[in-house]
Amino acid sequence: MALIVQKYGGTSVGTPERIKNVARRVAKFKAQGHDIVVVVSAMSGETNRLIALAKEIQANPDPRELDVIVSTGEQVTIGLLAMALKEQGVDAKSYTGGQVKILTDSTHTKARIQSIDDEAMRADLNAGRVVIVAGFQGVDPEGNITTLGRGGSDTSGVALAAALKADECQIYTDVDGVYTTDPRVVPEAKKLKTITFEEMLEMASLGSKVLQIRSVEFAGKYNVKLRVLSSFQEEGEGTLITFEEDPNMEKPVVSGIAFNRDEARINVTGVPDKPGIAYQILGPVSDANIDVDMIIQNVGKDGTTDFSFTVPKPDLARTIKVLEGVQAHIGAAQIDGDDKICKISIVGVGMRSHVGVAATMFRTLAEEGINIQMISTSEIKISVIVDEKYLELAVRVLHKAFGLDKG
Amino acid sequence: MALIVQKYGGTSVGTPERIKNVARRVAKFKAQGHDIVVVVSAMSGETNRLIALAKEIQANPDPRELDVIVSTGEQVTIGLLAMALKEQGVDAKSYTGGQVKILTDSTHTKARIQSIDDEAMRADLNAGRVVIVAGFQGVDPEGNITTLGRGGSDTSGVALAAALKADECQIYTDVDGVYTTDPRVVPEAKKLKTITFEEMLEMASLGSKVLQIRSVEFAGKYNVKLRVLSSFQEEGEGTLITFEEDPNMEKPVVSGIAFNRDEARINVTGVPDKPGIAYQILGPVSDANIDVDMIIQNVGKDGTTDFSFTVPKPDLARTIKVLEGVQAHIGAAQIDGDDKICKISIVGVGMRSHVGVAATMFRTLAEEGINIQMISTSEIKISVIVDEKYLELAVRVLHKAFGLDKG
Repeated sequence: MALIVQKYGGTSVGTPERIKNVARRVAKFKAQGHDIVVVVSAMSGETNRLIALAKEIQANPDPRELDVIVSTGEQVTIGLLAMALKEQGVDAKSYTGGQVKILTDSTHTKARIQSIDDEAMRADLNAGRVVIVAGFQGVDPEGNITTLGRGGSDTSGVALAAALKADECQIYTDVDGVYTTDPRVVPEAKKLKTITFEEMLEMASLGSKVLQIRSVEFAGKYNVKLRVLSSFQEEGEGTLITFEEDPNMEKPVVSGIAFNRDEARINVTGVPDKPGIAYQILGPVSDANIDVDMIIQNVGKDGTTDFSFTVPKPDLARTIKVLEGVQAHIGAAQIDGDDKICKISIVGVGMRSHVGVAATMFRTLAEEGINIQMISTSEIKISVIVDEKYLELAVRVLHKAFGLDKG
Repeated sequence: MALIVQKYGGTSVGTPERIKNVARRVAKFKAQGHDIVVVVSAMSGETNRLIALAKEIQANPDPRELDVIVSTGEQVTIGLLAMALKEQGVDAKSYTGGQVKILTDSTHTKARIQSIDDEAMRADLNAGRVVIVAGFQGVDPEGNITTLGRGGSDTSGVALAAALKADECQIYTDVDGVYTTDPRVVPEAKKLKTITFEEMLEMASLGSKVLQIRSVEFAGKYNVKLRVLSSFQEEGEGTLITFEEDPNMEKPVVSGIAFNRDEARINVTGVPDKPGIAYQILGPVSDANIDVDMIIQNVGKDGTTDFSFTVPKPDLARTIKVLEGVQAHIGAAQIDGDDKICKISIVGVGMRSHVGVAATMFRTLAEEGINIQMISTSEIKISVIVDEKYLELAVRVLHKAFGLDKG
């Protein structure tokens, strides 16, 4: 007898048939005696359809009105799922974000949740009903409809679980859990039974797009037990995201290997090695609204230094243009970029207590003749930039070197 | 400087291009200094798409959840129209029924409006904004989303005009006004500059489907000045629906000719001419949820009488089956039906003060050899049932006989 929040994404509710499948799964949990709150996304493709419609009217849609339009996607799904449950003899009631009320700030299209009123939902749960809530949306203090931004349904699920003090928040997706790396690259990749919150954050931000990162942060902040499961498999425990490291538990040194092909590298060479130079280079880039990920500055010699950083691939040309505009001012000898690179990261809380992880990583890559262009480290992660053509090879050999194929 | 409520139906907002056209029209009125509240329907086809989606889940969709789903149709339109106005430099704000708040009872899928809060709308109007409201929907006292039923956007428009004490409620459709009869049958049909509320009620219920009948009743009750116009023509004053007969005005005897091909006639002959027989016949029909329109009982002779009435054509077979089930009980000699009939009605408040209108109607039909099967009259209307094949001929000769082609 637990209170479980289940979140189903757009693919899981993409057709009437799939909605009926979700209803069957919910009904099964309900029959086991659990109280269930279901959070759903819009049917897959629907949000894009609505945004395209809005853009036919306004190239840059008014944010308030875009939220009015886009929020209808989830509103349709909640009604359909409530019907599907009733059709299976399970009493259910749908709630829009405003009906719950999920109070957010007024930042349309990327609002943040401020509070959730659990009173009405609790009354329905006590009356034996399944509660169905539209994900991704809320209402601001003036009653305007807001949305949480892309992927925000995960955050809705976690926030509802926190507000209701649910025993578990289950995120159903089209994968059955978090893997040691992408199984399409390494067929031997193993599903992780558990992953720590910190590791998940590093994995998510590095491209293992299983969960929206903000939802993981939210779960950590409110200590919500979060589990990733497949909505297309009947059985399976998925991957549980844990928040406390069990000191008695033997943790693997490395939990997973993430990678990212979406970045490009910029080199600014021969700049005067003086205070403020990093800001002079990155300030104009930031002003142009270009996201910067890895940043590396080598120790200088002869009064000059080299400065490197990565940006999203589509922004490479624009970044170089911005820097060429300030090249004379900063006194850089040369500016160049390379978009034929990739980033590979090993992640694991076990690194904290194990020396030599970096050494193993670098040796493994060296043995395959893979040149490392940039290195960046954090407490539980080591990232390297290598030539894009080595991506699959590098991930495979690292996966093996850290024993991840042994499960 | 007037306060005008404009209602645009599904065809008028059926595409992004048409929504931009509506925005241009609204902007023009706004530029003339008027305060404008716009009520919109769902884009044409959208409501049917949503209902079909719901029926894939539940053959008889749960009414509360159906309202949650169907109400998204208008919600998309209000957002798109607000964007289109902003794109044209006109400040605008959209409102769902719940945001207004249009309070209704809890009869899902056919709720009735109880009250409208005009405070927020007035604040926006005073700030110079165009207010855009989703038609067809409201919210019940518990915050559940309700809909007013098909065609309910007209009612929303009139109710908003009443609540705001608007100077005029303009209903934009794909016709440019109310005609003396259907121009597809009589090319000489003339557009009426005005029509009385009572005439409009008779015309609407008889098949001139320009306005939803409940909206006309609503306009009459709250004395809302109602005008029907075309959303596809730039100019034109449409038809104004008036509520007081101007005693000084020379009214034509007959204002229009309505017709209806959608009914079938039932004869129950040789029934005992005794009290309660009408109820014994119509009670079972009513219990089967079959709508009855015209009812005629002739004076009996020899202790028996004949009883005739009309039902919607698709219900003919079912009605006969119901009556055959009680034939022995009511003691009827024979039960038969005919779906090859039509109803033709002449409507006009001028009939009240002019004798001989019925005589002219019957003589005109007789001169063409058209046999009248049933006759029914009210104070401002005379309806006849004739063989369906005479419909066009009958409407044409009556249109001429009452001078309607003279404009």
